Parts: sequence; structure tokens; C-alpha cells
Amino acid sequence: MPAPLVVQKFGGSSLADADRIRRVARRIARERATGSDLVVVVSAMGDTTDELLALAAGITDEPDSRELDVLLATGEHQSATLLSMALHALGLPAISLSGPQAGITTDGRYGRARIADIEPRRMRAELEQGKIVIVAGFQGMSEASAADAEITTLGRGGSDTTAVALAARLGADRCQIFTDVRGIFTADPRIVTDARQLPVIGYEEMLELAGQGAQVMQTRAVELGWVNGVVIEVLSSFEDAPGTLIEEDPFVEQRNKVRGLAHDRNVAKVTLVEVPDRPGVAHAVFAPLAEAGINVDMIVQNVGHRGATDLSFTIPEVELARAKRILDRVVRELGFREMTTDSSVAKVSIVGAGVQNAPGYAARMFGALATAKVNIEMITTSEIRITCMIAEDDLETAVRALHEAFELEKPDELTVGASADGPNAGAVAS
Amino acid sequence: MPAPLVVQKFGGSSLADADRIRRVARRIARERATGSDLVVVVSAMGDTTDELLALAAGITDEPDSRELDVLLATGEHQSATLLSMALHALGLPAISLSGPQAGITTDGRYGRARIADIEPRRMRAELEQGKIVIVAGFQGMSEASAADAEITTLGRGGSDTTAVALAARLGADRCQIFTDVRGIFTADPRIVTDARQLPVIGYEEMLELAGQGAQVMQTRAVELGWVNGVVIEVLSSFEDAPGTLIEEDPFVEQRNKVRGLAHDRNVAKVTLVEVPDRPGVAHAVFAPLAEAGINVDMIVQNVGHRGATDLSFTIPEVELARAKRILDRVVRELGFREMTTDSSVAKVSIVGAGVQNAPGYAARMFGALATAKVNIEMITTSEIRITCMIAEDDLETAVRALHEAFELEKPDELTVGASADGPNAGAVAS
Repeated sequence: MPAPLVVQKFGGSSLADADRIRRVARRIARERATGSDLVVVVSAMGDTTDELLALAAGITDEPDSRELDVLLATGEHQSATLLSMALHALGLPAISLSGPQAGITTDGRYGRARIADIEPRRMRAELEQGKIVIVAGFQGMSEASAADAEITTLGRGGSDTTAVALAARLGADRCQIFTDVRGIFTADPRIVTDARQLPVIGYEEMLELAGQGAQVMQTRAVELGWVNGVVIEVLSSFEDAPGTLIEEDPFVEQRNKVRGLAHDRNVAKVTLVEVPDRPGVAHAVFAPLAEAGINVDMIVQNVGHRGATDLSFTIPEVELARAKRILDRVVRELGFREMTTDSSVAKVSIVGAGVQNAPGYAARMFGALATAKVNIEMITTSEIRITCMIAEDDLETAVRALHEAFELEKPDELTVGASADGPNAGAVAS
Repeated sequence: MPAPLVVQKFGGSSLADADRIRRVARRIARERATGSDLVVVVSAMGDTTDELLALAAGITDEPDSRELDVLLATGEHQSATLLSMALHALGLPAISLSGPQAGITTDGRYGRARIADIEPRRMRAELEQGKIVIVAGFQGMSEASAADAEITTLGRGGSDTTAVALAARLGADRCQIFTDVRGIFTADPRIVTDARQLPVIGYEEMLELAGQGAQVMQTRAVELGWVNGVVIEVLSSFEDAPGTLIEEDPFVEQRNKVRGLAHDRNVAKVTLVEVPDRPGVAHAVFAPLAEAGINVDMIVQNVGHRGATDLSFTIPEVELARAKRILDRVVRELGFREMTTDSSVAKVSIVGAGVQNAPGYAARMFGALATAKVNIEMITTSEIRITCMIAEDDLETAVRALHEAFELEKPDELTVGASADGPNAGAVAS
């Protein structure tokens, strides 16, 4: 029987200095001792990526995207070589590979490339020689032809995507994402002291939690795992404790309860006042934002008076300055009365299969916020999520009130229906 | 007429921070404004290489040489991208290329690779598109086949070699090495206040000066320039002033005088006491040092008593600990009485065509040192150099005494012989 293949990914905070790199090496050595073949994906050390961005910002306000990708990719080259050295120092055979050397090709878009293909020949050859393969995450090459290949990066958090893609392509038995948290919690434990770690969570629920600011894993990586059926384990690189499994959850329908809370402070609200109420206006507003890659969320249009309406929506707070420049032009062209913005807002969400279709959840959420005297400014829903926009100052109060209202501190209990004859709840957490 | 092609190389101190990188970009822009095509070779920023070595040293005492090369090469990738961004910010088209992208292949020896070939297709294509080509110095790839190519570095100061090799391969009209000094001087200006900058120097003289610690340019780069007839200009990146041309000097034979002084503090003396006087002993001592890549210099064997001799030689001071470990074994095996070492020594040399064959020079050198009360411990000579080992404490006294004795502060005067009908001295300095 061949050795099981495990893909492990370590983030920047796990590799922030020589001590931590050596600790990660010991963690890998323990897995190796169980007889596994190992492919390890690394991010850049600590704040390296931000430091490199600052270097570029010291040179020019608008760094060329190709040059920036080459610059940023050096961070992962460095951490990969250092981790390989640390494994050698433990007497373990290891080799670092750049994204291109690992056979990862992309669609060639600088700064936000998508993985196009993975040619695993070199990785397999190194594994067959008994080596632990360290792959620089976050990057790939634009073309397979040597002379004109360009380094392209996958965007922030891209190392998660590298790990899941490699696990899928290599048919890995496990894909472990080591982070600075122990797993996925019912709410941010820094806000809710009795927040509970979830032993298992479905891909879709994880996407809603991550997309709403849980920030444990890159959304794309979860999507990629979902499409390819890669079971992902999120766990701590600082302590030996079971993490959270992200997988197709067969009990989602039966569980039918709120699984966790997400919140996001990185939100700004934009309101266009007295928008002319005629076809094409929404397109004129949102098309240039989409072109600029600014994600718009929570769009609300209030029916107004005098044939005009107010149009409000949220965007990431970090995009506010850029969005204002774009919208100033639109406001002038279309003749809105004015544009107001507010970055002292936040979003809080309940996430769980079926929450949208069970009216009781929405009512309980709004009631809990009202009891806590938190005013709701906007509401949006998805299949498995209800999100309220509130004042940023109310965020912690709101998260605690919702955690209590939905009894999230209590362990999962399956409400097994007549059709449920699968494994029991204990098996889910295994 | 095609545009002249200029290769420029900027060292780490010229690129130490964002301000300096922008200054280098302006320097390049001025050359560009004269209509030149430009290939620019860069070293890593400031102390980056040392910082990366320290990172590796924090992980392990004996970093794997392949991993170390990948790690170190990131320094040049970073500076190349940043310089390219700085040129973009000035509105100049530029592109950074890694050593492999520039088509530089090596013999594959990690840490001390030699350039095997340069395939200039990509560089020429970028030049034809009007771009300034920035090449990461100090590196190349081990093979031309994409998947198994490995980054290899050329050893410390390798960016000089990259620049001269590119100038030779591309048939550049000029090869300019920008450093933190204005050119080659008759002696270190920090020691001798009236040291004079040489407008021109021959390759061989430059090699002796550089090899003896002038440390302006890598010796290999000068050799490569000599073999390929590349005229090299050494000049300051911090001021606009003429530098020193290194070229085949048609007046060397006629000049027939001391051209400059070199000194080297990075010296240690090793003495093996009571070496058995039998064949094969020298081989047993020096072969393992050569294998370890430790350069041995100034070997002196004193005829001894009782069939044994004392064997002394010098090595770079930084190699002393390693050499001792190697020699301890040899001493035990061969039965020497003991090994003594002394790292408080230094070398001082006079360099100039014909100094070895003109006995007057040696006499004047020894006389000047004697007058200055500097004791000579060992002496070696080459065609164009006489070197004395002295106590390190006497070094500055010795350099000043020799500079005065050979009247090096006075400008060159050609002693044109009967056969000399070439261009006049003024032309040499142009």
C-alpha cells in the first residue's frame, strides 16, 4: 500500500522567524514519522508581503503589476528555502520548489492569477526520492514555455489556494491548513468568550463565514475544495489540538440551525441621494465599480419622492477612496443630488443551512438585536445567511447578543429526521 | 546607425533604499536621454545578502547549498523589480529579468557557479521594443530545460561578472560598473590622503590590485573582461565624475613604473612547525584546503634542522576556523610538532608592469618599509607585483611610506621609448 499523501500549508505568522520555522519543521517531522509523504505549501514569513509592498510604495504610487508580482513572489521563495534548511537540520530530506518548478501554471493575470493547470511530474519525482516537497505558495508561471514564462501571484491569501489545488491534483489523502487559530468557531473568541470550536463545517457554511470576515482561509480555496471534494482541515500551528474539518456535510439539512456568526468591520456605506428613477442608472453606477474590481454588497434602493430614489450599498472600507473617485464622475454625469459615505458601520451575520427559509431565525435575530438596543440599518440574506448592517460601535454587543440568543455555546445536537440513517453525530467530528 | 548599447551595473550600496534606487533611475534616465540602448545589472539592496545569510544561519549552521542559492537570488530579484518600477515612474519603459529569464545558464555549481552560456534572445526582443532591460545579477540557471532548471549563484560580487559577461555577449559599446568609489586609486584614499585616481589601468594591473584587496570589482569580472576585450569603466554612482577605464593598456611596457598599492587586512598566517621533510607533505597539506575552496597564498618553507622544516602560508582570515579544523586532522596524521596561527597580519603590495624584473623596485620597497620601521615577515612576487606580509598594526604606516617612496601622487608620465609611435598619453585617459 502506498504511503498516504498529506498536503500541509503554513501561513506567515507560523513562519515569522527562525524559531517558528524550526517549530514548523518539527511539526512536519512528526507527521513524517507516521510514514506520510508530504507536500508542504508556505506563505511568506510574517509581514514580509506587507514590507515588500511598502518598499514598492516607497518607489512609486502605481507599481507595475508584473514587477510587483516578481517582487512579492520572493517572499515565498525565501520561506520555502528556510523551511527546507530547517528540515535538513533535523536530518530529513527536503527540497523547496518555486511555483513554476512545482509545475503550477496560471492564466497569467498579474496580482490575481488563477491556477490554470498543475503538471506534477517534478513533485512526484521528488516524492519518489523520499523528499519532503516544500512549495512556495501564492504563485505560478504564466506559460509553460521556459523563456517567456512570467511569475504571477494569486492574490492575498493565495497560498491556501495553492495547497488545496495541489491536494486535488495529487489526490492527497489530507489537506491541512495550519493557521494562528485552532479552527472555525461559532463566533470570534476575542469577542465571545464562550464561542465554541466547530468540529466540522460544510463548504457553503464556511464560505459564508469566511466571506463575512472570518478571515481564516481564502474564500477561493474553500470553493476549490468544494468543487474538487477536497476535505480541508483547519488547525493551529502553535498547539497540538484537533482542528475543524471543512467537508460536504451530510447532516446539514437535518441540523437546520445556526452554525456560527460572522462579522466584518471593513465595511463602508455609500448612499447616492435623489437618484433619478429611470432604467440604466444602476448599471451606470455599478458597472464602473465592477470594472475596478470593487465588490459591492448589500444594495438597498428606497422608493423616494419626486421620481427620485436613494441608493445605498456597502463596499470594503479599504476601497472607499477609490470608489469615491469613480463615483464622483458618475454623480456629475447622471445628476444625483449628492453622495454620502459612512465608514463607521459593520456587518454581523448568522450562518446556517436553511436560515433563510425558516422565518423564525430572522425574527429571533432582529429581536435579539432590538433587545440589545442595536439599530439595524440594512438587511440582506442568502440561502444560508442573514446579514445586518449596524453601527461599528455596536458590533461587539450585537455579536454577544446573537451568540446567546442562538445558544451557540451548546454542542451540536442532530435533529435526526425519519430519512436519516447515516453515521451518527460522533462520526462527523472524527 | 543602430543605437549604442551600454551595460551598466549598480552595486548594493547604490541601491540601499528607495531614495537611492530613484537616484539610480535618474542616472539611467540621463544615459537613456543620449539615445543609448541599456542593459542594467543590479546587485541586492544594501546589506540584503548578509541579512539573508543571517536568516539562514538562524536556522542551521550548514545550510544546503541549493536552498541557499535560491534564498540569496531573491535579493537581486527584489532590487531589479524596484529599479524597474522607479524607471516606470520616470515614464521610461523597463522590464526586470531574472538571471534565467535573461538566458544566463551556468555550470550548475551552487554558490560559485560559472556562466556557461548566455542566450540573448529575450533581452534583444525587449531592447527592440525600446525597453530598458534590468537583469538580476549574481545568478543564472543550471540547465536550459525549464522543469529541472535550478537557480545558481555566482558567488559574492557575482553581479560584476554578470555585467561583463552580458557586455561581451551583447557586443556592448560600453560596460560601466557603478560603485561607491570614484574609480581605481593609487592607494586607498582613506589611508593616503593624496592618493590619485588613475584614469586608465591595464587588466593585469587591475587584477593584482583587486586580488590584493582593492575590493572595487570582482576579480573574475576583470578576467572575463580581459579575455573578451571588454573595456570596463569603474565610476561612482553618487557623483557625476569620470571614472577609471580598465582596458588593454598599450603603454604598460613603456610606463614601466609602479601604478598603485594594494593592501589586505583579511589575512591569517598559518605555520606548521617541524614538518617532516619528505615528498608528498605539501600535497597532504594543501590538497584538502583546495578541496574546501580555501585559497592559499604566500607559501614559505624554511629549511630546518633535524630533517624537518617549518611551513608557513597565508589564507583569508575568514577561513581560519575552517582551515584549522581541516589541518588539525592533517597535523595528527602526518606527525607535525604543532600548528600556530596569527590573524594580526596584513599584506601590502606594489603593482605595476615590470616591477618583478626591475630589481630597483624591490629594493626601494624594502628600503621604504625599513625606514618606516615596518618589519617584513614574508615576501612573494608575481610578474607585476611585489607583496610583503607585515603586522596589521603597521599597515597604514607602510601604505603611506610606499605611496611617498614611489611618488604615486604625481600624474603618469610616459617614458616613450624609440619604438613607441602610438597615440599620445592624453588619448589613453579619454
